[in-house]
Amino acid sequence: MPINKINTPKDLKNLSIAEMKTLAEQMRSAIIEKVNTIGGHMAPNLGIVEATIALHYVFNTPEDKIIYDVSHQCYAHKILTGRKDGFVDSNNYLKYTGYTAPEECEHDLFKIGHTSTSVSLACGVAKARDLKGENHNVIAIIGDGSLSGGEALEGLDFGATLESNFIVIVNDNQMSIAENHGGLYENLELLRKTEGKAELNFFKTLGYDYCFIKDGNDLSSLISTFEKIKDINHPIVVHMCTEKGCGLKQAEENKEKFHWVMPGVLDETSSNTSDVETYTSITAEYLYNKAKSDSSVILINAGTPGVFGFTPEYREKLGKQYSDVGIAEEHAVAYSSALAKSGAKPVFTVMSSFVQRTYDQLSQDLCLNNSPITMLVYWGGISGADATHLCTFDIPLISNIPNMVYLAPTSKEEHLRMLEWAVEQTQYPVAIRVPNVPLVSSGIKDDTDYSILNKFKPAQEGEQIAILGLGNFYTKACELAKEIQLKLNINSTVINPIYMTGLDIELLENLKENHQVVITLEDGILNGGFGEKIARFYGNSDMKVLCYGADKEFPDRVPVDVLYQKYRLTTNQILEDITNILKK
Amino acid sequence: MPINKINTPKDLKNLSIAEMKTLAEQMRSAIIEKVNTIGGHMAPNLGIVEATIALHYVFNTPEDKIIYDVSHQCYAHKILTGRKDGFVDSNNYLKYTGYTAPEECEHDLFKIGHTSTSVSLACGVAKARDLKGENHNVIAIIGDGSLSGGEALEGLDFGATLESNFIVIVNDNQMSIAENHGGLYENLELLRKTEGKAELNFFKTLGYDYCFIKDGNDLSSLISTFEKIKDINHPIVVHMCTEKGCGLKQAEENKEKFHWVMPGVLDETSSNTSDVETYTSITAEYLYNKAKSDSSVILINAGTPGVFGFTPEYREKLGKQYSDVGIAEEHAVAYSSALAKSGAKPVFTVMSSFVQRTYDQLSQDLCLNNSPITMLVYWGGISGADATHLCTFDIPLISNIPNMVYLAPTSKEEHLRMLEWAVEQTQYPVAIRVPNVPLVSSGIKDDTDYSILNKFKPAQEGEQIAILGLGNFYTKACELAKEIQLKLNINSTVINPIYMTGLDIELLENLKENHQVVITLEDGILNGGFGEKIARFYGNSDMKVLCYGADKEFPDRVPVDVLYQKYRLTTNQILEDITNILKK
Repeated sequence: MPINKINTPKDLKNLSIAEMKTLAEQMRSAIIEKVNTIGGHMAPNLGIVEATIALHYVFNTPEDKIIYDVSHQCYAHKILTGRKDGFVDSNNYLKYTGYTAPEECEHDLFKIGHTSTSVSLACGVAKARDLKGENHNVIAIIGDGSLSGGEALEGLDFGATLESNFIVIVNDNQMSIAENHGGLYENLELLRKTEGKAELNFFKTLGYDYCFIKDGNDLSSLISTFEKIKDINHPIVVHMCTEKGCGLKQAEENKEKFHWVMPGVLDETSSNTSDVETYTSITAEYLYNKAKSDSSVILINAGTPGVFGFTPEYREKLGKQYSDVGIAEEHAVAYSSALAKSGAKPVFTVMSSFVQRTYDQLSQDLCLNNSPITMLVYWGGISGADATHLCTFDIPLISNIPNMVYLAPTSKEEHLRMLEWAVEQTQYPVAIRVPNVPLVSSGIKDDTDYSILNKFKPAQEGEQIAILGLGNFYTKACELAKEIQLKLNINSTVINPIYMTGLDIELLENLKENHQVVITLEDGILNGGFGEKIARFYGNSDMKVLCYGADKEFPDRVPVDVLYQKYRLTTNQILEDITNILKK
Repeated sequence: MPINKINTPKDLKNLSIAEMKTLAEQMRSAIIEKVNTIGGHMAPNLGIVEATIALHYVFNTPEDKIIYDVSHQCYAHKILTGRKDGFVDSNNYLKYTGYTAPEECEHDLFKIGHTSTSVSLACGVAKARDLKGENHNVIAIIGDGSLSGGEALEGLDFGATLESNFIVIVNDNQMSIAENHGGLYENLELLRKTEGKAELNFFKTLGYDYCFIKDGNDLSSLISTFEKIKDINHPIVVHMCTEKGCGLKQAEENKEKFHWVMPGVLDETSSNTSDVETYTSITAEYLYNKAKSDSSVILINAGTPGVFGFTPEYREKLGKQYSDVGIAEEHAVAYSSALAKSGAKPVFTVMSSFVQRTYDQLSQDLCLNNSPITMLVYWGGISGADATHLCTFDIPLISNIPNMVYLAPTSKEEHLRMLEWAVEQTQYPVAIRVPNVPLVSSGIKDDTDYSILNKFKPAQEGEQIAILGLGNFYTKACELAKEIQLKLNINSTVINPIYMTGLDIELLENLKENHQVVITLEDGILNGGFGEKIARFYGNSDMKVLCYGADKEFPDRVPVDVLYQKYRLTTNQILEDITNILKK
């Protein structure tokens, strides 16, 4: 059994092609079983098994350097580089992250989960090698979906000018997370059709040498190509065609669905589509109906439609009113801004972690121009996610930009009302942090006029203590108020601040009359966030302010309850702090 | 005199080519005289005079839409669109901004000063047109230097898929601000050499139709080409070769120096190079010597070497230890991170306004990987700059990212000591905000160990009032302390916080003993910045905290003294606030 013999890449070197084929099958089985058990990136990892074997057969890591893009294609690499136990032993399934992790292994160079970074990073690795007079191969692996990202394109442009060994492997599986978009993909298609022979070659125009691998799941052609280019003395792009999901019929047939899957995906019966309403489902439904009733509404996302419930059918029905710009968040924001300035009603949907890729466009293209777009930010909040995909930074990132209006709804009714206002208004760039908690329906029709900016909603009037519970943490504020009543016999004030981009000065001033303590609760990092603005506001007064939220750090797969404990976000801890401060 | 007759683009329509040539000369003279009087972008505007005339002759704005990149090439456009008075009448030289400004004129669509945005914006304008069933030309103008920016490349990729009128004019003057870098420019060179006929064509690989204008300063060929492509029904790139600085000998010969000039550039004698030390000059000198003594040191910048005093000779002498990556800040950060991880010592220099273009790379590629780069941030602080180039946002942007160490030196000695530490240490990503004030030399050798993080420097021990004067504003803190002594007879404490990324808990705790008020002074926006962290720290105590800095806004060319007054940053205003709070 080849897989049993493989503990380091060196163990590969003596295998025959036949044995490597068996190894590939065994690795694939392990990946399928593990991902079906704990969830993860299924189709991307199945597609690149053979290429990973061939790379480690031909090249010698860690002397040679392989840099993965996104790095969610690294499962096979992990199996071959001493971390097999995390894939074949179900007790160790959680032992390793789903991304490259230098702290795990010397064969991993960077901790990366966002796309489009590998080529730039590899440029630095190659340049450092040259400065130091060293001599090894530098290999960037990038998926075709990641190529459209600005960082990848900047890196490709620069990398072409390196005058030394520099190998970029484009893993072309004809897919981003969903289908590919953009002119570049037409060129990849042309190159596939002509088996790399077309004169018109994107990579060659940048100055790269180029070679084509027709079947990137065929070990023999992979190995012979890699052997040819090993130790090459100039930049080359290896255009390698693989099948996303290769070896798992369901994944081959439904590449998008199997990009990232929940546990048990292969055990699912067809009947288990959930009817439970979520903030995501009601948002998708609202947007669909809105677009159908108003032809100037257009939905924009950057390569992750599934996250927002935009199924293939949904997208198709929207037709021209739907733009998946591919992995290109910068373009998405500038494009949305211009759409809004030109009288359309753009709604840009984006995950909190990925909105980070477009700060300058939010500031310059959007807010400086005060374009009335709607931006919906998903998944914001403290979670047990990988350090590469944290969603705790969007409040400081977005809310400190002038002109922006960033809203934190706390119920279905508020959210839908805000959505309608945001889409229809023509005065501000409006962002809404789509709640990342189970849907709450207040049952009360919301008729708030959100155009009156920075008007916080008092939900319960009390005294001594006021609790500002922002967005996701509004429920926590209500629970805290109940506990305060119970344990301290104080009827506290509860406020739903709604606006993350401005303060309700009048309300905050009035609190001074009969409150001594203000508590702020926000589901994100405290540094630069909402609570600090409240603390600054009360800086010149006798009001005490206690701010609760996440620390400035990159926790890696730390369970939420552990984080809450660490950040003193449990009701008991906050009560303890309040008790202490009231004693003073 | 043609220029006297031109008040709107319509007035162009009846001119002959000969008259337009005269007009071009007159416009050029006006631009030269104005820029020599008040400073501004000289060479870029001189290069595009004829193209601007031809565009307005052939197309009909504001129905047709022209979107400028960077928009510092818009002077000729402003002259032709009703703002001539700002160029021919010296009393009105300051009437209009140096960038497109929709508030000035219906012919301007966006307020933009950062590069690489026009294609993405134009995509939105074109898509909105199509959604609304309208019918007009959409023209993006982009300089070759801007092409390397990720946003431009993302936009180009997407724009190629528009199935309607979409015209991208690439103004190829063979220059970024300095010389061009990157593989793409090799292709532009090939296309110039072959007069657009080379098979290998970057724009065609993306799917664009393509045409070439050999002499983009020749009105006849510009007009005939524009007439041909007017109302085209698909995306096309017009590759137009112009001469940067055209018509001004000094600018033609020294394109980089004449990109942006100070007033009186043409009146200068050769002897007026300044010998006055500045933070920029001592930094450039330090970096040069460091690189010469250590071959693993490498200086990186993204297309703006002149800002940092990296002259052509300086660059040449550094050879392989110098990387201008072109306009590509995202790549610059990832590249630097990988260089550091691979044992080199990268120093990335960047202006505060442009570091905005790379937030995600700072977070993911750099800080998550904890790569020990040195990043030097220039020009940070409140200024009278255009709204497009404000430098007030870098403190919140950078300092809220985990793992980052962001330092604010206050003297030559501190700055040089920090630089040396930053370059040599291997533990943290370190950013230094190069002071944007006249150089201060304390005369005292700095032997601080900056590896002991977050240790504030107490400069004067006093009581009641403590003043934290950050970086640029440290001098202001000292002045304030003197005034407090004089007017209020209080010996206040003065602290130089140094670290913007962490608090000196011990020092701040100790202040509670005999201080009632803490003042924070920072040269940037308050929202998300340093002062708010101090306010949060003292939130649970009796300490009063007054934070001073800029409001969250985009002021446009507002003089610094007016802004200081507005932000209550004058010593008298702060004294007034202190007096009020001490009365309570």
